[in-house]
Amino acid sequence: MSAQPIRAQAVAARAATRRLATTPSATRNHLLETLATNLLRDEAVIIEANAKDLTESQGSISPSAFQRLKLDAAKLRDMAAGVRAVATLPDPLNVVQLHRELDAGLELSRVSCPLGVLGVVFESRPDALIQISALALKSGNAVLLKGGREARHSNAALLAVVQEALRACGQPEAAVQGLEDRESVEALLGLSDLVDLIIPRGSNALVQYIQASTRIPVLGHAEGICHVYLDAAADTAMALALVRDAKLQYPSACNAAETVLVHAAAAPRLLPALAADLAGRGVELRGCERCRALVPGLGTATEADWDTEYGEPILALKIVEDLDAALAHIAAHGSGHTEAIVTEDPAAAARFLAEVDAAGVFHNASTRFADGFRYGFGAEVGISTGRIHARGPVGLEGLLSHRYLLRGTGQRVEDYSGPAARPFTHRDLAGNS
Amino acid sequence: MSAQPIRAQAVAARAATRRLATTPSATRNHLLETLATNLLRDEAVIIEANAKDLTESQGSISPSAFQRLKLDAAKLRDMAAGVRAVATLPDPLNVVQLHRELDAGLELSRVSCPLGVLGVVFESRPDALIQISALALKSGNAVLLKGGREARHSNAALLAVVQEALRACGQPEAAVQGLEDRESVEALLGLSDLVDLIIPRGSNALVQYIQASTRIPVLGHAEGICHVYLDAAADTAMALALVRDAKLQYPSACNAAETVLVHAAAAPRLLPALAADLAGRGVELRGCERCRALVPGLGTATEADWDTEYGEPILALKIVEDLDAALAHIAAHGSGHTEAIVTEDPAAAARFLAEVDAAGVFHNASTRFADGFRYGFGAEVGISTGRIHARGPVGLEGLLSHRYLLRGTGQRVEDYSGPAARPFTHRDLAGNS
Repeated sequence: MSAQPIRAQAVAARAATRRLATTPSATRNHLLETLATNLLRDEAVIIEANAKDLTESQGSISPSAFQRLKLDAAKLRDMAAGVRAVATLPDPLNVVQLHRELDAGLELSRVSCPLGVLGVVFESRPDALIQISALALKSGNAVLLKGGREARHSNAALLAVVQEALRACGQPEAAVQGLEDRESVEALLGLSDLVDLIIPRGSNALVQYIQASTRIPVLGHAEGICHVYLDAAADTAMALALVRDAKLQYPSACNAAETVLVHAAAAPRLLPALAADLAGRGVELRGCERCRALVPGLGTATEADWDTEYGEPILALKIVEDLDAALAHIAAHGSGHTEAIVTEDPAAAARFLAEVDAAGVFHNASTRFADGFRYGFGAEVGISTGRIHARGPVGLEGLLSHRYLLRGTGQRVEDYSGPAARPFTHRDLAGNS
Repeated sequence: MSAQPIRAQAVAARAATRRLATTPSATRNHLLETLATNLLRDEAVIIEANAKDLTESQGSISPSAFQRLKLDAAKLRDMAAGVRAVATLPDPLNVVQLHRELDAGLELSRVSCPLGVLGVVFESRPDALIQISALALKSGNAVLLKGGREARHSNAALLAVVQEALRACGQPEAAVQGLEDRESVEALLGLSDLVDLIIPRGSNALVQYIQASTRIPVLGHAEGICHVYLDAAADTAMALALVRDAKLQYPSACNAAETVLVHAAAAPRLLPALAADLAGRGVELRGCERCRALVPGLGTATEADWDTEYGEPILALKIVEDLDAALAHIAAHGSGHTEAIVTEDPAAAARFLAEVDAAGVFHNASTRFADGFRYGFGAEVGISTGRIHARGPVGLEGLLSHRYLLRGTGQRVEDYSGPAARPFTHRDLAGNS
């Protein structure tokens, strides 16, 4: 598809978000309730479409990707429940973030508004289409979606349900639109004047391709190289339990640990026990030279291991001289996602929390807690390792911008300028504007 | 200069911001006080350097650019006072933005931190170097600066004062560094892994060149096409006063008005008076066909006028059928900067405030109020027409990101997963973390 129709889609999306932005909260919630109801009503159609994808993909995708692709009645119930849960969240729009008197009869307020037009590119999991549509509509955004080729029948069926709900509720269908093919995505990535945010959901390769191909801001993370640092004063049982959780609870998650750093003074106490525990659970261990001297039979870590996100039950181990060396290693090799220290020493914990430059910095807790639902956001748009706009797990807040509203009674800047300038009062006001 | 030395500069800047991020507020404020003192102490050296720039630029730049370039004792006093004012602002770092119990003994907080490494490209006005350095240091950011060629001696002298203050206060000199030439800027724009934000300060052409040349987020606005809409219920005297202020108080400002839209029902009452008032003040008026029928002798507006930022005492005039037509014109031609309605009708004002998609939406106030100082931010980093990260006038807040800190007592995600999952409490806590 050439760039022109995609531009037309984005222009229609812009108009749709402007309309959604002014709908009352009840209208957007009713829309989500309708969507949830229709997802259950259209179960047979959706599962039939999904069956086509499953048949066509059989043998060509991994068993875990096949499981992610497969929809059944239980998954549809979960999707509908997820949409209803988004409907019950507080309205993110028109929240007054600042309310200030600039002078008598001149009041400034800052209110939240939709970001605008989102471009979402996702792989295999068709439920992502419903989740992101629900979050976008709740927050008044329009979204252009491109799912994986292997899920195209499922995605088309789900998109039809969303668009029918929009029609049924008198809202613009252009609020949620599908993109046909890879060429459409390339065209979308070029529309920096019309698209406000790109959200890639999928492999590191997908995220890196998108980050390298657009000047539109990208919300996401290409890598999750997370460390657990076992300090000199780490409790042995806690250290073992947290490393086990951080590595094994879900090894392919971005917030799983890839490298454990061990303070040299604690290594003789911690490392043999840690290695025995993890090896017994089928983890492949790759140690630095000092680690291997301490634990015979350990695999060998090369320089490349410090920069690798395994996504599998593989763990790199390194002995560091002290906290400074741990901080330096993390600064050099961390991806700014989530870093943890295990220690009973409050001073070491305080330094780690103060000095590590990452979206999440944890003390005596598993890196796996880095997640919008666990943080209590009620929804997760993604996890960002960028510093701009949103960092860490991102809830609905990441889909918002704001506008400054100024209500005056005829004020001119001329009167507030020059030698006889009238002063501003700049007095913060309580309550809503 | 090739890309490699610039990369080394950016790496040093990253290390510098990490150090600054952990300095106490008092240290950063002392640094700013030292800078202010030394600016006054080194007055002679700075003015001598500036004199070289003035001599070399004589005749080759416009009189207004020459005035912006020129430094004198009064301007240096203003610069020092500006630096001291930044020192007195509340510390923007380590502000607790969220503090939540996830479960007993598991507390999440979100604290502000520096964005990191800023790239600032500015034209002619050398005082920008001091202002942006002060804002960056206050907020713990490192900055790579490239000033205009015509101010290179002045900028070098000012940079030396900043770096000496950093040395004197035991802070890393790499926190504020200069870039040599245009090639250095090009190299900087390619360092999306090391530079967090680009701030261009200068002409629309500069901003557009930078936006088109980098994948690093850019804080700024290429255009300020602001409208004043005179509604059917606009008060005549207020309409005239506000248009006069919005157009003439500082015509080259980005928040000056370029087009006035007039409701058809009010045009016979407002337009002849407005035209007479502005023409009498030397404004060149360009009207639509209906305007010209109403005001004989008016200049002609073409389609191009609706998309032009004049930056001069020129004003486009258009009669619109009603509020809907005004909103449609603004949606089509506005640059998302600042839009104003003049009306005594609360319903029309409410619709305008709700529906216009711009950084600033004003009722009965001049568009010229769109400014960080007038908004009471104490400092202005820039004005953004983007929707991501920062929108509208941006104070120190625009130079910040945040980190999530999680303080636990050994918690594992495993215990909060599966059928026997322990529930989260997700209880917001008062006070600081």
